[in-house]
Amino acid sequence: MFEFTIDATCGPARAGRLVLPHGTVLTPAFMPVGTQGTVRALSPQDLRAIGAELVLANAYHLHVRPGEGVVARLGGLHRFMAWDGPLLTDSGGFQVFSLEGFRHVSDDAVEFQSHVDGSRHTLTPERAVEIQWTLGADIAMAFDHVVPGGADEPTARDAMERTLRWLGRCARRHTELKTSPDARTVGPRNSTGEHLQPSVLASCDQTLWPILQGGSYLALRAEGLQRTLDLGPWTGLAIGGLAVGEPKHVTYGLLDALAPRLPPTVPRYLMGVGFPGDLVAAVERGVDMFDCVAPTRNGRNGSAFTPDGPVNIRNAEHREDSRPLDATCDCETCTTFSRGYLRHLFVAEELLGLRLLSLHNVRFLIRLAAEMRAAIGTGEFPRWAAAWRRRYTQTGST
Amino acid sequence: MFEFTIDATCGPARAGRLVLPHGTVLTPAFMPVGTQGTVRALSPQDLRAIGAELVLANAYHLHVRPGEGVVARLGGLHRFMAWDGPLLTDSGGFQVFSLEGFRHVSDDAVEFQSHVDGSRHTLTPERAVEIQWTLGADIAMAFDHVVPGGADEPTARDAMERTLRWLGRCARRHTELKTSPDARTVGPRNSTGEHLQPSVLASCDQTLWPILQGGSYLALRAEGLQRTLDLGPWTGLAIGGLAVGEPKHVTYGLLDALAPRLPPTVPRYLMGVGFPGDLVAAVERGVDMFDCVAPTRNGRNGSAFTPDGPVNIRNAEHREDSRPLDATCDCETCTTFSRGYLRHLFVAEELLGLRLLSLHNVRFLIRLAAEMRAAIGTGEFPRWAAAWRRRYTQTGST
Repeated sequence: MFEFTIDATCGPARAGRLVLPHGTVLTPAFMPVGTQGTVRALSPQDLRAIGAELVLANAYHLHVRPGEGVVARLGGLHRFMAWDGPLLTDSGGFQVFSLEGFRHVSDDAVEFQSHVDGSRHTLTPERAVEIQWTLGADIAMAFDHVVPGGADEPTARDAMERTLRWLGRCARRHTELKTSPDARTVGPRNSTGEHLQPSVLASCDQTLWPILQGGSYLALRAEGLQRTLDLGPWTGLAIGGLAVGEPKHVTYGLLDALAPRLPPTVPRYLMGVGFPGDLVAAVERGVDMFDCVAPTRNGRNGSAFTPDGPVNIRNAEHREDSRPLDATCDCETCTTFSRGYLRHLFVAEELLGLRLLSLHNVRFLIRLAAEMRAAIGTGEFPRWAAAWRRRYTQTGST
Repeated sequence: MFEFTIDATCGPARAGRLVLPHGTVLTPAFMPVGTQGTVRALSPQDLRAIGAELVLANAYHLHVRPGEGVVARLGGLHRFMAWDGPLLTDSGGFQVFSLEGFRHVSDDAVEFQSHVDGSRHTLTPERAVEIQWTLGADIAMAFDHVVPGGADEPTARDAMERTLRWLGRCARRHTELKTSPDARTVGPRNSTGEHLQPSVLASCDQTLWPILQGGSYLALRAEGLQRTLDLGPWTGLAIGGLAVGEPKHVTYGLLDALAPRLPPTVPRYLMGVGFPGDLVAAVERGVDMFDCVAPTRNGRNGSAFTPDGPVNIRNAEHREDSRPLDATCDCETCTTFSRGYLRHLFVAEELLGLRLLSLHNVRFLIRLAAEMRAAIGTGEFPRWAAAWRRRYTQTGST
């Protein structure tokens, strides 16, 4: 049920096929982000219409609200959000380490305050795995310690060492849950005293992926990778703690150096990336999977991706423009509405505008991934990427 | 192209068929309100999916923003908002008389301040007709003088007399536009100096409906009706200035008294109504058509119509409720999501919630109209209405 095969390569760039319990994902793949169990402004029907294959949700957010127990009693995350395709949940490590306010980290656990009501919560690696098990995603992520892009080496090493220790604990708890029927039903199994629900969890077939940390330091990254692989085997590997404030050449340099050390037949997921140009650069460096809130967040702000660079639909130049947002796009927004109408929706603060630009931007990244896949298949990827980049950066305006 | 036939009657309640240039509308009919050229939070695809036949937009709002000239140059209102079905535009009388701030009314014109930027605008009956002609709706409404529900008789008479004088001017200008090709192209024809666009207007086939005023005074209403009919013939008649603050028994008493005086073969449109119970009461009194922002506005506030009365989805009782919002409903919201998930969307302030409850509420009124039509057809309407009212009011909670 968890299987990754490489279909074609073209330099370091790869095209593959990831088989998961709820469906198959063709890579390179962009995952729309449904943090709170909904991709902002889009319905599951919209997601299917724009070709989304794998959707991401966030264990921290769903734990805080409405609580994973509520989700489980409403049939698990797939049923809850009415998305019957593959789902990945992030563990909440990134969120916990990004929160404002109180936070206390020890090897045992992280204590923090909820962003919703300031209430105190504790996450351990075991709890992070239990929450995701209860949610029932196809792919769960290990609980990691993330540091900012500018962190010094001792800080980055400390976080990496903790992430590795936590990975061992995550994997043990995940194996326990998968292999022992008792572990699912004997409880209480979580800090709020809730039993895990055997009725909804019985069919849960989930895999756990590690997250590589190590800041901007190649030696740490290389060491962390090797020690992570020693804890395996894994069905996928995520690269975390990049695109968190460090310069782009550092990100790309690390990806370049890591690519040959990564096991070839395991999908590589670069977390939190990114904008169109970032996806192309990462696929050039052998990355298979991505997620980012940029398409929906920018869409809500009136900024649309196009092959000629971003377009701010609020600009007066679009007032009477009868052309579609992106003439090459097949989404509902581009095949139905003029730029003039979309501008009107934003200027008049109409909700439909938020939805239509979000829809287009997510479709743009999904199509971009599909185009890269096709170019890899025909062996044309380097040429395709050069042409794409020329067009995107030449005419773009913010 | 403008034809109304009565299919069945059952007491004063009528079922009919209204043929318009962009399609046929079965009555009783509820019109979703797309004030600014979009039914809030819903796409044209959504509107088709929930069986909307006739959509309302507002000439005042579209005049102020983006301007009817922009809409015309983007292909007219149908093309602009991508709604190829029948469209009705309200003239803006109600809006102009509801605005806060400066307003000066004379027989010639109304001067007022835009709600968007406070800029001064002038509307005359002629301009109101020209704006709607430029927008290109199937049905245009005459420019009327609306007074609050509590207005005294001299005030109500004054507004009614003005509405009648304005009706004559609206009808003359509309006939001019329809019959003289010059009137469309020789200009400037409007106060901002814009020529009307012959290219987009050439195919415009539009009818003009009068709006009956007269406050809460039957004698005024009866006199106004007769004088309106004397200015006809008309393809439809709207009743305005009701449900604007007067007690319900006054509204219903006026409708009861007007019903036998209204020409039987012309559709009757009760403006700005209403909530589910108001629709049933008005159909009982011979009304054919309705519009109201309640389904979308209430939907955005988390209040949903159900056959058992309104439901506030934010209530804690829905937290783990796996049932649909309305088990009798066939809309995407009710066939896809649990109450628990819908509550989560509202509590987590997710945009999808606004859309899903708006979608359901509009579908609820469209289905309600269709059920009334069916009950009229089988001669069961009085019994149906009694049963409907019993269920709706017995179990309802806000």
